[in-house]
Amino acid sequence: PDKLKTKVVSTCKSIKKLGQDDPRRITHSLKVGLALTLVSLLYYLRPLYDGFGVSGMWAVLTVVVVFEFTVGGTLSKSLNRGFATLLAGALGLGADYFASLFGKKGEPIVLGILVFLLGGAATFSRFFPRIKQRYDYGVLIFILTFSLVAVSGDRVDELVILAYQRLSTIIMGGATCMIISIFICPVWAGEDLHKAVASNLEKLASYLEGFGNVYFQSSEDDGSNVISPKDGKTLPKGYKSILNSKNSEDSLANFARWEPGHGRFRLRHPWKCYLKIGTLARQCAYQIEAINGCIRSDIQTSEEFKNKISEPCKRMSSECGKALKALSTSIKTMKDPSPANSHIENSKAAMKDLKFALKAASLEDSDDFLAIVPAATVASILVEIVNCVEKISEAVNE
Amino acid sequence: PDKLKTKVVSTCKSIKKLGQDDPRRITHSLKVGLALTLVSLLYYLRPLYDGFGVSGMWAVLTVVVVFEFTVGGTLSKSLNRGFATLLAGALGLGADYFASLFGKKGEPIVLGILVFLLGGAATFSRFFPRIKQRYDYGVLIFILTFSLVAVSGDRVDELVILAYQRLSTIIMGGATCMIISIFICPVWAGEDLHKAVASNLEKLASYLEGFGNVYFQSSEDDGSNVISPKDGKTLPKGYKSILNSKNSEDSLANFARWEPGHGRFRLRHPWKCYLKIGTLARQCAYQIEAINGCIRSDIQTSEEFKNKISEPCKRMSSECGKALKALSTSIKTMKDPSPANSHIENSKAAMKDLKFALKAASLEDSDDFLAIVPAATVASILVEIVNCVEKISEAVNE
Repeated sequence: PDKLKTKVVSTCKSIKKLGQDDPRRITHSLKVGLALTLVSLLYYLRPLYDGFGVSGMWAVLTVVVVFEFTVGGTLSKSLNRGFATLLAGALGLGADYFASLFGKKGEPIVLGILVFLLGGAATFSRFFPRIKQRYDYGVLIFILTFSLVAVSGDRVDELVILAYQRLSTIIMGGATCMIISIFICPVWAGEDLHKAVASNLEKLASYLEGFGNVYFQSSEDDGSNVISPKDGKTLPKGYKSILNSKNSEDSLANFARWEPGHGRFRLRHPWKCYLKIGTLARQCAYQIEAINGCIRSDIQTSEEFKNKISEPCKRMSSECGKALKALSTSIKTMKDPSPANSHIENSKAAMKDLKFALKAASLEDSDDFLAIVPAATVASILVEIVNCVEKISEAVNE
Repeated sequence: PDKLKTKVVSTCKSIKKLGQDDPRRITHSLKVGLALTLVSLLYYLRPLYDGFGVSGMWAVLTVVVVFEFTVGGTLSKSLNRGFATLLAGALGLGADYFASLFGKKGEPIVLGILVFLLGGAATFSRFFPRIKQRYDYGVLIFILTFSLVAVSGDRVDELVILAYQRLSTIIMGGATCMIISIFICPVWAGEDLHKAVASNLEKLASYLEGFGNVYFQSSEDDGSNVISPKDGKTLPKGYKSILNSKNSEDSLANFARWEPGHGRFRLRHPWKCYLKIGTLARQCAYQIEAINGCIRSDIQTSEEFKNKISEPCKRMSSECGKALKALSTSIKTMKDPSPANSHIENSKAAMKDLKFALKAASLEDSDDFLAIVPAATVASILVEIVNCVEKISEAVNE
């Protein structure tokens, strides 16, 4: 029983944590519960039941399948479902009529062939990246509705009435979802994307701001020329999550496209620009990952050399950090990103200083080339990062 | 009309290309068509119809929603759907019985509360990463079935018979999908994962094998010390696709877990190891991305210095490439990866040579530190890559 108790406690804790991490998860669950209850009760109440028949079930089904975490997701699924049902229903009726021309014996054969052809073709169309991205769910519903309508042709006498009932219940379910998701604590995919991109830049910034001091500190403080692993660990590792952020950004941008204008975003907000900034941020994160490897390098670095380049390198990294912070703030507030320009200019100036320092440097007697390699690597990757940050700033300007 | 014609032609071409890229897409579409036709005709034929009632529709629905590209995907969805329906059906009947204790007036209120609570709780549970990963679809079906059964309680007199019919049609639909996906040209997620991981290593290998020659060639051929952008472009860029491969690998591993033993894979094949190798391969790809930046660097590199390190660097990069190729082959053939060891030893020896060369090097009069930075960076990242390849080899050994 003690074991059970600890397990229950740990489960409760992880539930609590999940809710605290993002309280919108709790509101989302409540919203789904509400939508379900509303639609279920509509279906349960007698007058509506008599009107809608068993089709009422489709309203419940729609709510369950269509309600997504973000408004954009819900809208895209609802609209996909609605239009696909309409189109497939019409085609299904057509197929029924067409098949009936072949008489009692030919009908099932013709229907079977039609279902096979349309089912196969529609399934194949789901492999197209463009369709997969935006209309995947719609195609699924299309296949479903078409087969159902085509095959039930012989069974149900009043097929058109049935189709009408089914469509109206689906619209009812879809509308319930859309209204609840838009008007009760909406979770906008666009806003999430906006925040995610801004916070990614901030993560890069906080690493870069810390990096200069951590990597070059030992040379000043105690003269020991080994970076302790602890120092490497104190740097914020938030940038690691950026490395694999492509998919989530893509799907958010995808959903954002379906959303109506809200808050500070117009209907046709340039969501593609966010993807561009996201790609550049990932590029920057790859460089940071490489630089992070240098910190752990086992080659002893020459302190004299490190001191020589320390000042411009520190400035490059901290100015890049500041520029990224400024860019992130300008994204967040949607204001002119010009404050970042001065930091970028500073970092470019530091880059020039670094080049001068390198040109002026001469080799100390005690050192060899091996000893300068890690520091030189850090310097050259910082140069890449400066270029990358400049590109990000250009993208933000758009 | 000409415009329309070109559009049709281009669409046809892209369809053809899609099919040629992976012919399994065509067989998959045919398989879905076949499963749909089979189930639809079963539903269409009178004797079965009389037995199954409108529930036969659920078989069609199951096929459409459950049939996935890989066997693992189909199995995971079918089993999730089956068990979730069973569990939710039982709970729904219980809820109906419980609600009926509260009399005619209390019943809808109690049912509403129950649907709200269970719907909300189940939706929340989908946020748990573990549940999201494996049972997401099951939870969805659970919510659906529970609401349907709970709410239709008052309507349908013979609820248990209905539930039995529904379950049996779902099992029929699921079984059709499973049988067709396993026995007709099966697409195993495990095998795909296996191939994807091996081909990722190969992509890294072909970049590394080419890199040494491209980067260090100019110093030998014509003495011009600028790498033309063309040279950078001739390197195979396949490694770029590895940078964002995490999600697809994760989902394949996820599906692979549901698959029975097949071909050379046992039931409990260590799929997690593939994910580990995949992560290391990505790590390596990040380093290559950084090295790729060096090729495009605008700092003029000292030719003398380049020549000094050229030989060991070339060896490091080509031996790493060979080691990765050997590892990739050993994964493909599932044989002992020891042939790679000699290449790894070679590359480590080259790394030592590089260190000696660096220690022995002295600065030419004409050069300055700035000029050696890019080459030094390349060297130090190559060292990182050697370490990374060693880790990959360890992971493959497992």
